Amino acid sequence: MKQDDVIRLHETHQGVLEMTAELKVRNNLDLSKAYTPGVAEVSTVIKQHPELKRELTLSGKLVAVITDGSAVLGLGNVGPAQGLPIVEGKALLYKELADVDAIPIAIDQVSTQSIVQTIKNIALSFAGIHLEDIAAPRCFEIETALKQQLSIPVYHDDQEGTAIVVLAALINASRVVGKSLTDLRVIINGVGAAGVATANLLIAAGLKHLILVDRAGVITPTSKNANDYQRELAKRTISNVDSGNCLDQVINDQDVFIGLSEADVLSGEHVRKMADKPIIFALANPQPEINPTVATQAGAAIVATGSSQYPNQVNNILVFPGLFQGLIQSRLTEVSPQLELLIASMLAKMVKRPTVTKIIPGVFDDGVVQVVANAVVKYTRDSES
Amino acid sequence: MKQDDVIRLHETHQGVLEMTAELKVRNNLDLSKAYTPGVAEVSTVIKQHPELKRELTLSGKLVAVITDGSAVLGLGNVGPAQGLPIVEGKALLYKELADVDAIPIAIDQVSTQSIVQTIKNIALSFAGIHLEDIAAPRCFEIETALKQQLSIPVYHDDQEGTAIVVLAALINASRVVGKSLTDLRVIINGVGAAGVATANLLIAAGLKHLILVDRAGVITPTSKNANDYQRELAKRTISNVDSGNCLDQVINDQDVFIGLSEADVLSGEHVRKMADKPIIFALANPQPEINPTVATQAGAAIVATGSSQYPNQVNNILVFPGLFQGLIQSRLTEVSPQLELLIASMLAKMVKRPTVTKIIPGVFDDGVVQVVANAVVKYTRDSES
Repeated sequence: MKQDDVIRLHETHQGVLEMTAELKVRNNLDLSKAYTPGVAEVSTVIKQHPELKRELTLSGKLVAVITDGSAVLGLGNVGPAQGLPIVEGKALLYKELADVDAIPIAIDQVSTQSIVQTIKNIALSFAGIHLEDIAAPRCFEIETALKQQLSIPVYHDDQEGTAIVVLAALINASRVVGKSLTDLRVIINGVGAAGVATANLLIAAGLKHLILVDRAGVITPTSKNANDYQRELAKRTISNVDSGNCLDQVINDQDVFIGLSEADVLSGEHVRKMADKPIIFALANPQPEINPTVATQAGAAIVATGSSQYPNQVNNILVFPGLFQGLIQSRLTEVSPQLELLIASMLAKMVKRPTVTKIIPGVFDDGVVQVVANAVVKYTRDSES
Repeated sequence: MKQDDVIRLHETHQGVLEMTAELKVRNNLDLSKAYTPGVAEVSTVIKQHPELKRELTLSGKLVAVITDGSAVLGLGNVGPAQGLPIVEGKALLYKELADVDAIPIAIDQVSTQSIVQTIKNIALSFAGIHLEDIAAPRCFEIETALKQQLSIPVYHDDQEGTAIVVLAALINASRVVGKSLTDLRVIINGVGAAGVATANLLIAAGLKHLILVDRAGVITPTSKNANDYQRELAKRTISNVDSGNCLDQVINDQDVFIGLSEADVLSGEHVRKMADKPIIFALANPQPEINPTVATQAGAAIVATGSSQYPNQVNNILVFPGLFQGLIQSRLTEVSPQLELLIASMLAKMVKRPTVTKIIPGVFDDGVVQVVANAVVKYTRDSES
């Protein structure tokens, strides 16, 4: 696929989506149903029964996919205009993979407070908010504030999406190598949005031996170069590692390396220092933390990446389309850690007999969206009863 | 059409629109074009050539139809949740009448400044902003601020849309009664968003004899019960009328009554006091300022309303679909008074031989959208050359 062809493809339709009318408007009778005076009746019904807004308008089904372009995969802080194709692509995937209606919105890089206020001000137009490619630590503040203030689901794909799919893959990887999931000694390398959320979900899943490594070294509750979210998280990870240690100094005897960082930071030498049957998730995009062939030659038992070029693609696309299909269907208003654990578990179970090259379903495997959506519906039903 | 049927119609699809994918996503090759790594290439091209954002993303074609529900036709200040069906209906009309992609957004009734900031923060996602049913005087501040700060067209349908279609109708009405347009003595009754904008456009069209009447009486440059926008406007209307006079006291010998107010404020007695061959635009919805039959019996030469039940429906639907089709096509970034005058003139010209019952094209007449869009394209071409 040449660059020119891709550009032409996106240029043909001015973007990859369009609106479609569900009603015809050909004459005054149509107009009276679709617009005045029909809509006045819809308004009046919503006044009497506010909960019917979601039944009678797009706001019951439309997901806003929002980015400020501050942390675009592989490109960095490119700004909202360049972030727009990313959220548009996500909106397309929602429609194509799960028949979920989603609208891409790029938001200016104003203050965190102003971003929160902006999303809050328009939120009643939507069934859910999907945050995308917003840099840490701003993304934590934004998501927390919105979750507190909105009565619709708020989800940050780079956080929760990554965490869920990493956990799903790790459940099966631990089975393949014959180790207990909760006893795994894990290094998370790269402690941005995805790293923090993944660590939180692994802790919720019962893992106890986590080491967080960022550019400045291991993060501890007193790290000077860490943000509040990272330090808070570090209180819940193992405590006998000194701040300032780098990857080289902590990789010994670890069972799992989860890379959410950048290309080529992990060497074959690192892998050789790890425990028996090491599990390597080299999820940086587009280039992984270590070439999978190098990792395997150095003794890795299982290698996963974010790319479809290699086996074991750990990709958020496994999560968000089915998640919002289920959220809309069940009208659940929050994505909780318990729901994330359930989805991870159901995704892991889709692989009946995990092997070193198949620890996670493929993006286009039959039933992925349905399994995730069903998990949400089941979770909602169970928590209501 | 029973209320239940209308409600069912809107309920069937959760609203009257859906998103449609322009690309299929069935396998990894599709994914590479539609999402990663394809979108990274689109981002990169936008970085190099920012003007290509509108060619390569929905932001080149998508209109945001935004309301805070503070001045909904016939319902008043019902709030954003109840305003949502209105903007959704407008978005449907855009698609059905002009193949323009539009998305409905309801915005919370926060401060004027916060509404401006919110729209500004998300504006680069859109090709244009259509403001709808926002109360005066807030709507003037919001539109003025957005026009100054955004580089995409900003249009308030209740203001510019109404003004254009009223002027179009008045051009032909003056021809039918054999009076000079610019010499017409006009009362504008109801000086909210539509009244102010209509007065401004009539002045731009050369009319000199305007009297503004609101609930508290005639508006003058020193009226205590008027807002700044109304007082500023009053400086440009005739000055020999005392503030505090009401409709009864100023209707004598007027050629035209333009009602943008409420039901039943004009009587047959009022009409009988007007000049020879009076022109009555009773545009309140759903009930006009005077029953058309009563007006005709009292001697009105021409009666227009906002309703399709009577001849001469003065309806904004004649304007906005073609306007934004033309704006998107021509990439014009501003709706200027000169453009509004041109559109009004072209709409008037569509009626080859105006009569008392045909001063304006019908909403579903062939070519309405095309005539308006062509006017925009022609205006853009002429102003560039």
